Amino acid sequence: VGATDLNTAALTKPLVSFLSDYGLSDEFVGVCHGVIIGRCPQATIIDITHMIPRQDVRTGALVLRAALPYVPAGVHLAVVDPTVGTGGENARRALALRTVAEDRILVGPDNGLLTPAVLRFGGAAEAVELSGSPERLTPTSRTFHGRDLFAPVAAALAAGAGLGDVGDPCAVEDIRPLALPHAEPRDGGLAVHVMLADSFGNLAIDGSVDELAAIGAGWGSEVAVRCRARTHRARMAEAFAEVEPGELVLYEDSWGMLGLAVNRGSAAELLGVGRDDELLLEAV
Amino acid sequence: VGATDLNTAALTKPLVSFLSDYGLSDEFVGVCHGVIIGRCPQATIIDITHMIPRQDVRTGALVLRAALPYVPAGVHLAVVDPTVGTGGENARRALALRTVAEDRILVGPDNGLLTPAVLRFGGAAEAVELSGSPERLTPTSRTFHGRDLFAPVAAALAAGAGLGDVGDPCAVEDIRPLALPHAEPRDGGLAVHVMLADSFGNLAIDGSVDELAAIGAGWGSEVAVRCRARTHRARMAEAFAEVEPGELVLYEDSWGMLGLAVNRGSAAELLGVGRDDELLLEAV
Amino acid sequence: VGATDLNTAALTKPLVSFLSDYGLSDEFVGVCHGVIIGRCPQATIIDITHMIPRQDVRTGALVLRAALPYVPAGVHLAVVDPTVGTGGENARRALALRTVAEDRILVGPDNGLLTPAVLRFGGAAEAVELSGSPERLTPTSRTFHGRDLFAPVAAALAAGAGLGDVGDPCAVEDIRPLALPHAEPRDGGLAVHVMLADSFGNLAIDGSVDELAAIGAGWGSEVAVRCRARTHRARMAEAFAEVEPGELVLYEDSWGMLGLAVNRGSAAELLGVGRDDELLLEAV
Repeated sequence: VGATDLNTAALTKPLVSFLSDYGLSDEFVGVCHGVIIGRCPQATIIDITHMIPRQDVRTGALVLRAALPYVPAGVHLAVVDPTVGTGGENARRALALRTVAEDRILVGPDNGLLTPAVLRFGGAAEAVELSGSPERLTPTSRTFHGRDLFAPVAAALAAGAGLGDVGDPCAVEDIRPLALPHAEPRDGGLAVHVMLADSFGNLAIDGSVDELAAIGAGWGSEVAVRCRARTHRARMAEAFAEVEPGELVLYEDSWGMLGLAVNRGSAAELLGVGRDDELLLEAV
Repeated sequence: VGATDLNTAALTKPLVSFLSDYGLSDEFVGVCHGVIIGRCPQATIIDITHMIPRQDVRTGALVLRAALPYVPAGVHLAVVDPTVGTGGENARRALALRTVAEDRILVGPDNGLLTPAVLRFGGAAEAVELSGSPERLTPTSRTFHGRDLFAPVAAALAAGAGLGDVGDPCAVEDIRPLALPHAEPRDGGLAVHVMLADSFGNLAIDGSVDELAAIGAGWGSEVAVRCRARTHRARMAEAFAEVEPGELVLYEDSWGMLGLAVNRGSAAELLGVGRDDELLLEAV
Repeated sequence: VGATDLNTAALTKPLVSFLSDYGLSDEFVGVCHGVIIGRCPQATIIDITHMIPRQDVRTGALVLRAALPYVPAGVHLAVVDPTVGTGGENARRALALRTVAEDRILVGPDNGLLTPAVLRFGGAAEAVELSGSPERLTPTSRTFHGRDLFAPVAAALAAGAGLGDVGDPCAVEDIRPLALPHAEPRDGGLAVHVMLADSFGNLAIDGSVDELAAIGAGWGSEVAVRCRARTHRARMAEAFAEVEPGELVLYEDSWGMLGLAVNRGSAAELLGVGRDDELLLEAV
């Protein structure tokens, strides 16, 4: 974030960003917009995406973390909530929190979805639990908390309510973390993991350009990619277009993460890998 | 509606909600937005959904009725219009109307699409026919009335025009009804019907929790579901998560309608039923 | 455009329209919205469509040209950019320009995408090249110029910056044209071409109602459609509904272009044709 100069103007009106796995086939997103505009008519709503794979908290968390630095500070609503409606001990909490950096407000389920984004903005300075929020719609449905709880709370906060007005204080230490794999040096190479695959079969992997340099791989290098008992060759390049169609390329993606792609093809298909699979990279 | 407390703020700017079957693959929705903003630059547009199955007036009508209580009162544009461009005696009328409750304005074809929503808001207090509207774009295309007639009329109304400014008065009694099946007691059970199926295979059915109670079924009950010469067992539960994966559950959905679903599966597929099919429910 | 009376109100707030091939599965569109609102919080954003087939500059150009007359004059951002990230001599330029008519501002890659729309508004009065724009985000990614270059420039222009503030002047004569086929009389008939096919298999073709009249075909006429060594019969009609289901119809579409469609079917499939394929039309 620090390195990105966004030239932002001072926001003069309330902003709510919204990410979910609701999809666009049904009216769920539209109804949440209705609830938000009803509570905060001046809000500008930015739909980050609603096509997070259904119930995929991890992808939602990574996309939220990648996207928020480009969205002006405001209220950031995110709903990927596979255990909504589960009662008793398994019930997840519902949260609104304020980040240490930039005073961003995040609203969503306490299932790890918000955590990577919160860490990117210095952690949580303050948090409240929302289950008894005076802002929730009544009757409150068991399963559509986006509409009945999270959207009205987000809108109330955008309209100027304080965290203490919308929920009960809770300890920021108790916010649920999200387990993510970590790249590590191994056998002279770098063990990396597939963090997510996009709709074109491009893979986001952990590890960084610096970690690749430490194993002797730099721009233009050939890199061996070992997985599933096979070895592929990839070239480190600054752009897809620098390799031939069908070739594997290792690059820094537009989010500053490492990517593995096939020019005009699918790396996920070529390598036969998916989320959390491990790959060993070695300089050639 | 009366039971839902939406905590709405007073709307200080014009609002147009928009539902259609235009889909998102083409530029149709974007062009209608252009026309609306051109006529009423201050409008906030809420897209309820544009993924109503193509030409499916009934699904559009049910989704509109379910969604509007969560959308602030304003101008509500809806276009699912299979007979647009049909001339002569088969031509459907084009309407704008004001509801008895909440003074909502609805705009769309007179083919039953608006009717269930209008009834939810107490019926129509006043209606006008739009075919000669001074607000329509000229030339007016034969087939894209969303762009050329309905969007500019909705925008004009949002900008403050009265119904009488945009069309010719017509009798509210002549607004076309929408035929819907009705649940009814039969043979000690309750005959219900599939109103619509969502993209997950969850079925919305007619009938209510009260009607189920009248045949002896309450929360936690087992219910026999007879259809297509087979009998399935469903459990009445407050949430999907209360039944095992693969099991059939009968619940009150987030719209307050009865739903039949399979936890992590498709009830439409399991039962082999679709719209308007009849099911007989019996307490076990 | 001249013939369409849009009844537009004076725009009192900045407007950015946005067309791309980013699709809706990823967060790309949402992130660009974030950048735009960050730089110009008062902007109204109209998404024309983001479902242009991937890297299909020609379809993007035709849709932009068709849509813009219905979108109020403002800043019009368009990104279909297959050669983004290609360096050296193959690098395409990045442009912002002002049209002669209506003072519209268009922003996008200089690959022909903007050109048909620009010509519709009388050509370009003034243009600037954006590669060194002070408005671009830094670091600037190699591949996501929508986010890092085009969106912030569009937002700056919407916020009131002049063209000279966001790039370096360049000659309007150098703006890259877009090669399009042209209908022409041949052998007593009219040779036309498939300009694009929509998601229903309806074909937009070049040629006009006047050119059809010149070969003796008018409303109600039968027309022979010769292609791929076969001959089909089409009827010239003002609406789909005037021909039987399954029949081929030649009509003027809602954009004022000629269309070939099959009532409740796919003309692309029936004729076995796609983009740029030539058809010979003859009056029967």
